[in-house]
Amino acid sequence: MGSDVKRTNDIAGELRKMIDADRVTINPNVLEQHGKDESYHTPRLPDVVVFPKTTEEVSRIAEWANAHRVPIVPFGVGSGMEGQVIPQQGGISLDFGLMNRVLEVRPQDFLVRVQPGVTRMQLNKELKKYGLFFSVDPGADATIGGMAATNASGTTSVRYGVMRDQVRDMEVVLADGRVIRTGSMAAKSSSGYHLNGLFIGSEGTLGIFTELTLRLYGIPEASVTARASFPTVANAVEAACAIMGAAIPVARMELIDGRSIRQVNAYKGTDYPEFPTLFFEFHGNEAGLACDIAFAREIVEDHGCGDFLFETDSLKQTALWEARHHLAYAFLHGYPGRKAMTTDVCLPLSELAGAIDHARELIERTGMVGGIVGHVGDGNFHSLLMVHPNNPADLEQAEAVNTEIVGYALSRGGTCTGEHGVGLGKAKYQRQEHGDALDVMYAMKQTLDPHNILNPGKIFIF
Amino acid sequence: MGSDVKRTNDIAGELRKMIDADRVTINPNVLEQHGKDESYHTPRLPDVVVFPKTTEEVSRIAEWANAHRVPIVPFGVGSGMEGQVIPQQGGISLDFGLMNRVLEVRPQDFLVRVQPGVTRMQLNKELKKYGLFFSVDPGADATIGGMAATNASGTTSVRYGVMRDQVRDMEVVLADGRVIRTGSMAAKSSSGYHLNGLFIGSEGTLGIFTELTLRLYGIPEASVTARASFPTVANAVEAACAIMGAAIPVARMELIDGRSIRQVNAYKGTDYPEFPTLFFEFHGNEAGLACDIAFAREIVEDHGCGDFLFETDSLKQTALWEARHHLAYAFLHGYPGRKAMTTDVCLPLSELAGAIDHARELIERTGMVGGIVGHVGDGNFHSLLMVHPNNPADLEQAEAVNTEIVGYALSRGGTCTGEHGVGLGKAKYQRQEHGDALDVMYAMKQTLDPHNILNPGKIFIF
Repeated sequence: MGSDVKRTNDIAGELRKMIDADRVTINPNVLEQHGKDESYHTPRLPDVVVFPKTTEEVSRIAEWANAHRVPIVPFGVGSGMEGQVIPQQGGISLDFGLMNRVLEVRPQDFLVRVQPGVTRMQLNKELKKYGLFFSVDPGADATIGGMAATNASGTTSVRYGVMRDQVRDMEVVLADGRVIRTGSMAAKSSSGYHLNGLFIGSEGTLGIFTELTLRLYGIPEASVTARASFPTVANAVEAACAIMGAAIPVARMELIDGRSIRQVNAYKGTDYPEFPTLFFEFHGNEAGLACDIAFAREIVEDHGCGDFLFETDSLKQTALWEARHHLAYAFLHGYPGRKAMTTDVCLPLSELAGAIDHARELIERTGMVGGIVGHVGDGNFHSLLMVHPNNPADLEQAEAVNTEIVGYALSRGGTCTGEHGVGLGKAKYQRQEHGDALDVMYAMKQTLDPHNILNPGKIFIF
Repeated sequence: MGSDVKRTNDIAGELRKMIDADRVTINPNVLEQHGKDESYHTPRLPDVVVFPKTTEEVSRIAEWANAHRVPIVPFGVGSGMEGQVIPQQGGISLDFGLMNRVLEVRPQDFLVRVQPGVTRMQLNKELKKYGLFFSVDPGADATIGGMAATNASGTTSVRYGVMRDQVRDMEVVLADGRVIRTGSMAAKSSSGYHLNGLFIGSEGTLGIFTELTLRLYGIPEASVTARASFPTVANAVEAACAIMGAAIPVARMELIDGRSIRQVNAYKGTDYPEFPTLFFEFHGNEAGLACDIAFAREIVEDHGCGDFLFETDSLKQTALWEARHHLAYAFLHGYPGRKAMTTDVCLPLSELAGAIDHARELIERTGMVGGIVGHVGDGNFHSLLMVHPNNPADLEQAEAVNTEIVGYALSRGGTCTGEHGVGLGKAKYQRQEHGDALDVMYAMKQTLDPHNILNPGKIFIF
């Protein structure tokens, strides 16, 4: 750890010839803040942190860095879960905090054009006055640029899709400083290769996003939240699958296991039944919702649920969902000093109940502390494994559990990461998941970034 | 035109060492059938047509063709609109007619695994017994492989999305014969680069699809169709945009202009009002639909519609939509000997009314025969320009109209092709649309197909 002082000063000196000196910093506190994210991964400092204001500046920085083989790592707010923003080989952390403007709302087109440093809450606050919203909700108040970089999703993707479904167009600075656009404002296109899709989820390894055009949705006429608890995880998952099969358009459908409910009760002083629980949100018109709710109730009751509750009042809706929102805090608060290693597999729906059972058994067998939460409509679930980040034995055990969970998912047609991305933690599973396709991905990387300056050390480890 | 006899015999001879001789043909009728599609583009014969049965055969053919610099052009049923299957440089037409099996239906996962030669009607017939359907409907009974190659869409994409949204995984044979998988069965993934998205819409220029895993939907509980005519195209488009804004979940929403309705009336002996008309389909539960219909009626009446009709009976639904279904035939039947050059721009919704007006004026000013039909929820519309395919002046005039329509769309944030693909007809607009991003696309092409054997002459013309 730590960086070479001469190198740091050289880089800072050169960058200060290009952009305002006060936006190029080697302040130790700022460096430290840019050396980590929300994950358990070991921090590593950048040589310098730069706060660009324009695409042109980013382009100039890239051109220089490419010529001088200096790594560039884009940085949003550091809310990532797999160490994507950690500068593994030092270099420049490019903080988009000053490129955080909502550039243009086009309400008639259900589009908004933003800079990458805009956060999703900032965006939704701005959109509310137009009766519109941006749908992706990963929990954290992440930046739009960061969410695009990891192809983030979350609780609403079962209805509205993931980040890749929302981005219509991006302005991207390539490793050599060239600036391209990856799409258009059209709702669909069959023109040329799908560069949008390729750059989204590329975690800063193929290009640097400097502008994004996003799809929006009208705020639905009405919404209802509901909660249902079940005797077993299998019952809950089967109920969720049956709801998908009945084509009931749930906007959110989250599973929390009994262990996690217990943690929330301890943290919040609540008295939720300590059983596997599904949390629902439905969007639509009032008549349709009444029908959806009645149908959903019938289905969950067929699967052993005896306490289906629903709320139409918006304040009570929030209260009904509180257990879901406080889950991560409940564990972090209950185990001070620990961090969460979060698994993130996603499987075909028919394999989900088995995978969750398998994960639960593993966690119990190893004696680890951990809860399970699932975006069950997508087949995606997380095990929150509470680890001491400085205890190698602890990390090793959690890693072994993670590896088994990933192996189970991959052998059943799933993926090692549904929404957190590869970063540092999932790189070791890339060959197992993608086989020879990983070579095709790496060929793309070499073509677009021949000197490996764009977030080196991520995704590919050979 | 025509091919070199020795070359043809050499290629056929070599291929017959690799696969059953009777599946390698140089029969002139078969060659002719594989030298054209549904478009106005000039046919060009392949040297040989091959009917592979397995991925392994496709891989062997690619490896040989790559070593000997022989072009390969995948072929489904030839229903394309931009000449994608025309072998511009001869070589091998790879017909997937014998790879047409539905391999596995996974009803619990809402997934199906198919070979590329399966057609969408064949697939939906098979899926019906599970209460499931495959959503993409481009009109023609195209193959799934062909639809993936052009990123096809159609009338239902406003609700369910385009081909790229439905493909979870593909098996792809690369130019050098390597076989990769581009995705998984998971509903979402942030693992590695999005190869699925890159290969879909690549029109046979990056790899050859040998298997596809597709997302399915439950057949909705109920559906309603409706029809509404308006004084002007602008009224109709504004009504359509208002319906999108109200978040009414239309499953289809099609515009047909008055000229086209007149053509249908002449062809079918019907008496539809000869005004711009919107055709709707709504999917949902009965209570929700009643609400949606009432709301939609209110909106269309606010925009000048005086004759909103709707049908819940499935036979009457078909009758209500007949004008839409027979549109292309009505023109082809009314102008024997002509073919349709079909424009395919897609724009942000706020620009759609202006673009359709502009196209209508152009058509009238030039005295051409043509109708306009639009997937208005997506901002995509087609002008059907009826041309004599052997009359160069006619083609030139239609091409000039096309170029103006494309120029209008590109200057307003649109794309030159919403769903038909680039092929031969839209290659000339690629630089104008993509700028320097076209170089990035071409770099991908060179990386994956260094000897340019995969469908050469398509997408890129420099």
